This record gives sequence, C-alpha cells and structure tokens, in this order.
Amino acid sequence: MGDIRGRIGGGKLAPNDRLPSIRQLAASLSVSPSTVVEAYDRLAAEGLIRARPGSGFFVTEAGRTSAPLVRLEPPRAAEVDPFWVARQALDADPGTSKPGCGWLPPDWMPTALLHAGMRTVLRQATSLTTDYGPSRGSAALRRFVETRLRQQSIALADDQILLAGSATQALDLVCRLLLRPGDRVIVDDPCYFNFQTLLRAHQAIAVPVAYTQNGPDISAFEAAVLREAPRLYLTNSGLHNPTGATLSPQVAHQLLGIVSRADMLVVEDDIFADFEPEPAITLATLDGLSRVIRIGSFSKTISASLRAGFIAADAERIRLLTDLQVAIQFGGPSQVATETIHSVLASGGYRKYLDHLHRRLDTERRATARRLGELGVEPVLMPRGGPYLWCRMPQGVSSTALAQAALPQGVVLAPGNVFSPSLSSDNFMRFNVAHMGDARPFRVLERALKTLAHG
Amino acid sequence: MGDIRGRIGGGKLAPNDRLPSIRQLAASLSVSPSTVVEAYDRLAAEGLIRARPGSGFFVTEAGRTSAPLVRLEPPRAAEVDPFWVARQALDADPGTSKPGCGWLPPDWMPTALLHAGMRTVLRQATSLTTDYGPSRGSAALRRFVETRLRQQSIALADDQILLAGSATQALDLVCRLLLRPGDRVIVDDPCYFNFQTLLRAHQAIAVPVAYTQNGPDISAFEAAVLREAPRLYLTNSGLHNPTGATLSPQVAHQLLGIVSRADMLVVEDDIFADFEPEPAITLATLDGLSRVIRIGSFSKTISASLRAGFIAADAERIRLLTDLQVAIQFGGPSQVATETIHSVLASGGYRKYLDHLHRRLDTERRATARRLGELGVEPVLMPRGGPYLWCRMPQGVSSTALAQAALPQGVVLAPGNVFSPSLSSDNFMRFNVAHMGDARPFRVLERALKTLAHG
Repeated sequence: MGDIRGRIGGGKLAPNDRLPSIRQLAASLSVSPSTVVEAYDRLAAEGLIRARPGSGFFVTEAGRTSAPLVRLEPPRAAEVDPFWVARQALDADPGTSKPGCGWLPPDWMPTALLHAGMRTVLRQATSLTTDYGPSRGSAALRRFVETRLRQQSIALADDQILLAGSATQALDLVCRLLLRPGDRVIVDDPCYFNFQTLLRAHQAIAVPVAYTQNGPDISAFEAAVLREAPRLYLTNSGLHNPTGATLSPQVAHQLLGIVSRADMLVVEDDIFADFEPEPAITLATLDGLSRVIRIGSFSKTISASLRAGFIAADAERIRLLTDLQVAIQFGGPSQVATETIHSVLASGGYRKYLDHLHRRLDTERRATARRLGELGVEPVLMPRGGPYLWCRMPQGVSSTALAQAALPQGVVLAPGNVFSPSLSSDNFMRFNVAHMGDARPFRVLERALKTLAHG
Repeated sequence: MGDIRGRIGGGKLAPNDRLPSIRQLAASLSVSPSTVVEAYDRLAAEGLIRARPGSGFFVTEAGRTSAPLVRLEPPRAAEVDPFWVARQALDADPGTSKPGCGWLPPDWMPTALLHAGMRTVLRQATSLTTDYGPSRGSAALRRFVETRLRQQSIALADDQILLAGSATQALDLVCRLLLRPGDRVIVDDPCYFNFQTLLRAHQAIAVPVAYTQNGPDISAFEAAVLREAPRLYLTNSGLHNPTGATLSPQVAHQLLGIVSRADMLVVEDDIFADFEPEPAITLATLDGLSRVIRIGSFSKTISASLRAGFIAADAERIRLLTDLQVAIQFGGPSQVATETIHSVLASGGYRKYLDHLHRRLDTERRATARRLGELGVEPVLMPRGGPYLWCRMPQGVSSTALAQAALPQGVVLAPGNVFSPSLSSDNFMRFNVAHMGDARPFRVLERALKTLAHG
C-alpha cells in the first residue's frame, strides 16, 4: 500500500493509469494474491484507486491531488482569551506537558473498567451500537442519576432527567431554552473559562461577581442583581472551577433568597461531583429543582471520549429541552457512550477507583503546593478535592506572560485572566496537580519566573 | 442483589438498617462470600446501601425513595407535527414496526465491521478512549473526507473540514454561525422534517419552494428569493429526503446563478451519499465551496450510536465554526466514534457492504412498490438509491389519519405533512423500504386504508 501510495503521490502513477494486475504484483513482491487484494481494497476505500469491472484497478483523480497523510494545522493566534487554554490543550502535540488543562492524564483514568464496559456493550444487542438512542437517553443511566440525586436529598419524579452529549452540551441546551440575546447572566469571577465563551455564543452578557472562599461575595451578588436584573446565575456546585472552593451553606441559603426575590433561575454545573470526598450542600439541595437546574457529567472520571452529561430540572423544562435536543441533535446521546458509562458506574470497581483517585490527588496536591511554594507561587486555599490549585504568583509576575513564555517550551499553562471576566486575575494561575508529577513544568516555571522577575 | 433490592423497595429494610454480614448472607444463600461482596459493592455503587468502615453495610436514604427500575415514560402528545416521526420512532417500544423512521434496522447495519473497528480502537492508545479529541476532530477521518470530496471534483485545501457530532449537529453549528432570528431560509417542500424544527430552534423562518423530480421548481425558487431576500437555501444533495429525487445538472446550474445574484449561501446535507450507486452532480460540485457549505455523516450506513458528521466550507468559516464548537461542546467529536468510523471506512469490507446494501435496497424497493401498488399506494418516482419511497395515497386518504390509525397497532408511519412546511402533502407518505420486509405494516395499512376509505 505504501509503495503504491508513494508512486501515486510522487507522480509516477497518473490518474487513469492502470495498476499492475493482482497476480503480477503478488509475484513481483513475493506476497500472496490475497494480500494484494486486501491492499487494493483499502486503497479503493481511501479513494486513491478504483476498480473497473473486468479491466482491473486504475488511479483516480483523487490520487493526483491527494495531499500528504500528515499535515500541520495552520498556526493559531496566541492571544490569551477564554479560548486560549482550550485551544492549546486540545490541539497540543503529543508529549506536551499540560498543567493548564482541565482533565486527568490518560493513565489516571479507569481504563480497565472503561474497556470492560465497552466490551460488555459490544456483547449486547446490536441496536445499542447501531441505532439512535431514546430521546431522553438511556433509561438505565437516567435511573442511576436519579438515585444519585436522591442520595443528596434532591427529591425528583421520574421525568426530571434528560441525558445530553456532555455537561457542556447540556449547558448549551439550557442556555438555548432560557436565554435571549442581551440577557444578563451572573457568573463567578473567576469562573470556568468556557462559561464566558458559551454565553458569548448566546449573545448573553456575563455579569461577574467576585468569588470568595465560601462562594460569591453576597453583597456584590445582591448589588449586581439589583443593577442588572439578570435572568440566570451560572456556577459550579460542589467544587468550584478554578479555585477549588466550596459554597458554604450560609452563603447558599442567602443566595437563594436573593435569587427567589429577583425571580431568577440558577444553573449549577456539578461536573466535579466524583472528586468530592463527601457531597457538599449545593443550591439544588436547598432549593430542590424549582429555581435550580442541575447539570453534571462523567467526562472527568470515566471518559471524555465516550461522553454523556445530564440535566435535572422541573418536568416541563425537561420536556422542552428534550424536543430542543431532538431538533439540534436528533435523538439522545450515543447509546454506546451511555451504556458504557452505566456499566462502569454500576460496577463495584468504580467506587474503589474513586477512593484511589482521591488519595492520589491528595498526595499530588500536597506535593505540588510544596514545590510551587518553593518558587514563591502560593495556593490561595487547599481544596477538599479535585485536581486544581488556584495560586497567587510572586509579586509583579503576570501569569499571562508566564504562560506565553512556557508554551514554546512545551508546557501549556492556564493563566488567571482566562477565568476572569473582569480580567482581574493576572496575578493568579490554575494548576492541575495530576499533570505536575514530572520535573518539566517546575523547571520551565522556575526559568520563566526568573526571567520575568529580572525583566 | 435482587433479593436485597426487593427488601429495600418493599420496605422490609428501612434507611439505616444494617444488612446481614457477608459471612451470614453467604452461608444462608449457599454462595461464596466473594459473590456477596460483589453484590454489596454493586448495591453501594447504585447508592442503595453504604459501607460504614468497621461496622458493615447499611441501607441509605436513597434506598427508601428509590423508584422501580423500569417505568413508563409519560404519554406524549400524538399531535402530527414535524416532531411526530422523531418522537414516535426514537421512543418506540422494542418490537414496533417502523417504516416511518429514517434509518436502517440494526440487522441491516455493518455490525461485524463496526465491532471490529471498535476493538481496533480499544487496542490503540488509551488516550483515544479517555481524552477529548482535537478541536477539528480526528485527523485520519478528516483526511478521508477530503479525499472523498476531491473524488467528486470539489477542490479543497487542508483546513476546510471540521468534524462534528453528527450531520444534525453540524447543521446546527452552521445555522448558529449564519442565522439571526427572523432570517428567511428556503427549504424544499417537502423536505426532511428536522430542517423545520431546527430552523424553528434558530427562530428563522422557513420559506418553502415546491420540489420536483429534478430539484426545486426554479421559477418558484427565483420568485421566493426576490420576495423574501433569504439568507440561505437548505437542501439535501445526492438523494433528496423524503422524495428520493436527484437534482438535475441544469437545475443545479440555474439555481446557483440565482443564489449568486442574490448573494445567498447554500447548505447541502449529503447525508445519503453512501446510498448512491454513483455520486450525482451536486451544488458543491459546480460551486466548489464558495457559496456552498457541504454537510455529511456516516450515521446511516455505519452507526447512529457512534456518530460523527462533517462540515466542508471555506477556511475562514471553518475557523469560526471550530471556535463555536469548542464553546458549545468543548473539543471535537468523540475519538472513539471518529476512529471507529475511520477504521470501518478504511477497511476493504465497507465497499463490499455498500454494494450488498445497494442490491438489497433495490430488491426491497421494487418489492415494496409492487405490494404498495396493490393497495392503491403509488410511488411518485423510483429513486436511484436509498431507503425511501415517497408515495401518493389512494384518492381522499389522509396520510395523517392513516399514521394515527397505525400507531396503536405498533406501526410508526411518516405522514406527508410532517415533511411539508406548507402542509400540502397530506395525500403522501414516506416509506422506508428496509422496514417493509415483513407482513405487519402491509396488514395494518390494508386494514386502515379500508376503514378510512369507508369512513
């Protein structure tokens, strides 16, 4: 195959040239005819050659214009905006160190459980691997999510869950249902950078409120509500991204009071649920699902490749969201994904994996905090769980400059301002401790910090 | 597990009740202790019970409120609107006959190739099954799509393809980029029903133009363009849904002239590409990718569960669409899906599967046309390929009434008006010939037709 592809690419074989017969080529390469048949079939599948019944194989037009199999992506703007981390982390070359990314390295993921789950799905009904799923998504996974939420004392009936392709897609669906261009949405400052890009995609206006160690600054929150008449408050529950902080029950209670008086809604994204040692009190816990819409997913601790997220909300909103998802996606999320995820969740092994993961993260979090401390980089708080440390840089160091200096050295960092709608976090950086296990990020940080301090 | 679940559900075990010890239960059931450990682990994973270190397993609060494992969905409105077919077909009970649905039955799909592809992915790098994919999607699948398009004489550079979760998601992305509320969009009448629901989700206004055997009625198209100043024309290329018709080169040429003078864009959804015996001339073939955006997917002939679609457009639009997809989805489509699909496409077996599929559909199409003809139901045209027959009902028979009569008898039909933005196709019905292999739909049709004719 390589030989023929090379001859076509190099111009030795032109469009409409006839290829050697199967027998000829097999003899000249000393391989079996079936090997040549297989190679020709694959080249035909690629579109480089084509069979003409009765007269053999010929090079196609596509063969001539076919480009090399590996090509470089066009260079992307290095501008540090809320897309920065996503772009750099998603499209990084293999081997790049990514303390800036939001997920665990592949060797931290429960691959054995995941692959066993996929094999289980492969042994089940063919329709799971070939068909569209039911419009609300796999019944088994919905029942699992319901039980989970009931464990957190969130009462819900059996028509209050919709599965979506991911937490991001779930949030996008909710925004489509609730937001109109120009609507105001309160977000934490700092907050998950993609909240900003998503709101921008909906032409909604993010209203930042400073986030403290216990949740949003309540008086700033109330002032923003009175000033901007927002439609929504969009936040994380459980563990906050990027700070790792947890909302206190008192702040949660006060906040819901304000939200209720202003007739607003809350969307809480509980994406880090499985990183918590114990579930925290959340807004949905206090409110039920009356003003609060709960979003979650399994992408962070099972798979970001076989993804599924969920929305828990009142039944009427779920009905509207289901129709909306059919319109923009046709059907629920991949049954291969949802059944695999359910298989992992329902296995006894998943709890054990999480226990192990929590211990491993605790160890890495402490070690990373210690080593960063030696460089003058100080965690703002020690989170109860999760992969993030939100750190203050040494006096006068711009985390944006630091991230730009680290990138050419193969280290993707997450500078504070990508998380800050008010651009007031240039002195902060989010580190993912699961990516700090080797010396490289520290070496690059140390060198860049020296340069920046002397500059 | 069933026994304990039953005792909890039935109220014999209350929250905080202690479960029998592992040794006790193993002895009383005559099973090994490891079987009991496994069962307790699974019940704990479901959240019904919980281990307290040193003191055994206890029933949780969730146990009490846990609902039965199987529940009925709330009944859905039987209103015949563009959602009708999607709702009925996606959420049908197993065993329902679905000549109204848009896809092939599971046993028509290339399951052996698909599962071999999945197993290949399982053997590759762990990151494929755990990580987010690159923002434009799998490089291998993008290269494959490029080669395909070049075979159809569509010249394109290496930055003109974006992979998305499905053709529907691809189309949604394009609409988000191009449409503003109130924008006019020309659609065929009849057209794929989800085009209407999707445009509604974007608050765009569908402008229907009558579709003929050779494409849209050109003078009606021109009049609509002058009257409505539309932003887009949204259509299928290759095989038209629901009619199975093919655009003629003359109509394509005239249509592009009108589009160009009006400075409009065209989105052509080539979802049925792999059902064509030979690729037809399409709008993208004549235009290149200047005014035409090409969308496609592999859901119909590889898998609707491991889905991926693509967008081919000019490089600047692809750049904007990539950022948009990161904002609303984070990352490209599932790598498990795209690599599995690529593995199937690159195998020699896929071409052979398609050849077999085409012959099988040809046979079923002829047989279905003959048997429908005996009931007075006449195909409007015989398509070159694909699963659909667009048929005229006997004089005076409403296809809506027919579909409503067939549903309680376990047959989902696709009445003409779900495809018709002007609601002018009540005398037509779309049949999927791959679902007409057994006697049931014909029996139900025959009975319902008799009743309706006498009513």
